[in-house]
Amino acid sequence: MNFNNGDLANTGHWGPPYLLYLGRPADALAIKTARGLAYWRPDWCVGQHRHPDCRLTLGFPDMDFAQARAKGADSMVVGTANAGGVMAPETITDIIAALDAGLNVVSGLHQKLRDNAQIVAAARRNGRTLFDAREPNRRLAVGNGRKRAGLRLLTVGTDCSVGKMYTTLALERSIRARGLKADFRATGQTGILVAGDGIPVDAVIADFISGAVEAISPAREDGGWDLIEGQGSLFHPSYAGVSLGLLHGAQADALVLCHEPTRQHMRGLPHYPLPDLVQCLEANLVAARLTNPNVKMVGVALNTAELAQADALAACRDIGDRLGLPCTDPVAMGVEAIVDNLLACCAN
Amino acid sequence: MNFNNGDLANTGHWGPPYLLYLGRPADALAIKTARGLAYWRPDWCVGQHRHPDCRLTLGFPDMDFAQARAKGADSMVVGTANAGGVMAPETITDIIAALDAGLNVVSGLHQKLRDNAQIVAAARRNGRTLFDAREPNRRLAVGNGRKRAGLRLLTVGTDCSVGKMYTTLALERSIRARGLKADFRATGQTGILVAGDGIPVDAVIADFISGAVEAISPAREDGGWDLIEGQGSLFHPSYAGVSLGLLHGAQADALVLCHEPTRQHMRGLPHYPLPDLVQCLEANLVAARLTNPNVKMVGVALNTAELAQADALAACRDIGDRLGLPCTDPVAMGVEAIVDNLLACCAN
Repeated sequence: MNFNNGDLANTGHWGPPYLLYLGRPADALAIKTARGLAYWRPDWCVGQHRHPDCRLTLGFPDMDFAQARAKGADSMVVGTANAGGVMAPETITDIIAALDAGLNVVSGLHQKLRDNAQIVAAARRNGRTLFDAREPNRRLAVGNGRKRAGLRLLTVGTDCSVGKMYTTLALERSIRARGLKADFRATGQTGILVAGDGIPVDAVIADFISGAVEAISPAREDGGWDLIEGQGSLFHPSYAGVSLGLLHGAQADALVLCHEPTRQHMRGLPHYPLPDLVQCLEANLVAARLTNPNVKMVGVALNTAELAQADALAACRDIGDRLGLPCTDPVAMGVEAIVDNLLACCAN
Repeated sequence: MNFNNGDLANTGHWGPPYLLYLGRPADALAIKTARGLAYWRPDWCVGQHRHPDCRLTLGFPDMDFAQARAKGADSMVVGTANAGGVMAPETITDIIAALDAGLNVVSGLHQKLRDNAQIVAAARRNGRTLFDAREPNRRLAVGNGRKRAGLRLLTVGTDCSVGKMYTTLALERSIRARGLKADFRATGQTGILVAGDGIPVDAVIADFISGAVEAISPAREDGGWDLIEGQGSLFHPSYAGVSLGLLHGAQADALVLCHEPTRQHMRGLPHYPLPDLVQCLEANLVAARLTNPNVKMVGVALNTAELAQADALAACRDIGDRLGLPCTDPVAMGVEAIVDNLLACCAN
């Protein structure tokens, strides 16, 4: 973990304990980043900050900025923006108040904290850090594809937003629970706040996609696993380039295919159907073999949140049988079957 | 053509007639951009500027900056940098002198003209334009993959630097010579200076690769062809993400596969062999079908500069027979056979 920033920007310390800023969210999606932290790192969160008419909660004590500081909070986490990616004036006011109360501020917003002069001035006068998780925070090299030591797993998907981050974090928890070493490697803004480190690969210059992934999962000699958070899908016409660069940079020994079985079309593109699961599995293996000819698909992770329990179990059974792989919902059912298969297939 | 710049930076007019700046090049590669302009747009070039000990020439009259201005030159073209991408002090001095003589300056250098305070000051005091062709010069949207009107061809390759730009420009020349409409769409810095417009797709933020290609080849209703310059290779571990985004953004009706038959390994990566031609052809078609299910491979372009003429002809014959496609060296032999096949396969 590295809660200090790289050499390009975003300098200064930040990290947990966190105050989760909910503000006045438009909907549940607007607190996605805070929810990810609450779910995966509850022990890092001391409280939540809500406006009086906010009906959403993450179950932490409500507190203002000074109370959070008194409870030991280091940084406030600002999550998803309002529609259009614009920061609401109220959010700006709150961020400044948090800085004035002595909190650092970390953000997964599209709009950069550092691009707002008032916020920057407040950070300066309080000697506080601003961290924009959507901005690559280190100097990158282009990928070189050279074989490096260590074991790596990458989550891939039929689409965007099908549970790749949750699956990867569930694998980390399960492998660690077995007494083995494993580290989540973050490639998106929520993952970066959960891990305390990482590179938002969809925000790097196109020439550096695979190089960024090589940088976050370097050679590893301790026998542990690097579990790399996937992004997008080879079958998403908007973002497939990012997904292919991830596959090549990861040099994955193992892939896990993530899918949302009720999804009607590719996210944001009603004119594109989801790929067939077998076709998607094969395409990912073929592409991944360029940098690791021994790559294997070790499991399928379904996000069944939209299904009744019986339907969810049936979906896992059907898809698992069809693909000949363990298939499970990581959140509802755990990932033990996938980890069993991973360790049987790929351990040194 | 658009010799005015977009809304983000690089504002102001630039364009031909050009003075080609050779300076004191380390080798032939150091004048690659100027050579491309000299070869494809000789009528846009009024002269070349060399230091006394420069032995390379592009065959244009030697002139200083004031002479070039007197001959009607609008802009000076600065090509490839010295090793390490650093601009030599001598180059900086020359650029400032060119600006003082009244020339605009356009550059394909990695290092940005706009990042040098002396150069920026010289441009300001002379009211001249600086244009960095490696910098995306417009605001981009993510790709949407929606079917758009028009005919599009994309060059793809077994590797980087195998002749994709030359092939695309040769196709433009041949199709236009037949009285049909065709426009080269540039995706790299040399191509952008040749076309007077374009986006360097390897320099955009990763999320916007396919969107950038959609932007440079928008819906077209006049029956003409957009001929899109490819970049990289699906089989290059450093850059394949860029190539896949290009394939998806292009929605190509036709692909031309480019190859350098003497290449021993992937460019810059001695540990990676070149892909098999059949495998490369198939992989590009499979990926391209996501956004255009009717895509066809219409020809193979070989860069045979390193072969004797008899060997070059034999290589074209062998590969053409093996792939069942017209195969030719665009520079040495022209592209008529490929254009015949293109028009037979894909014309409306």
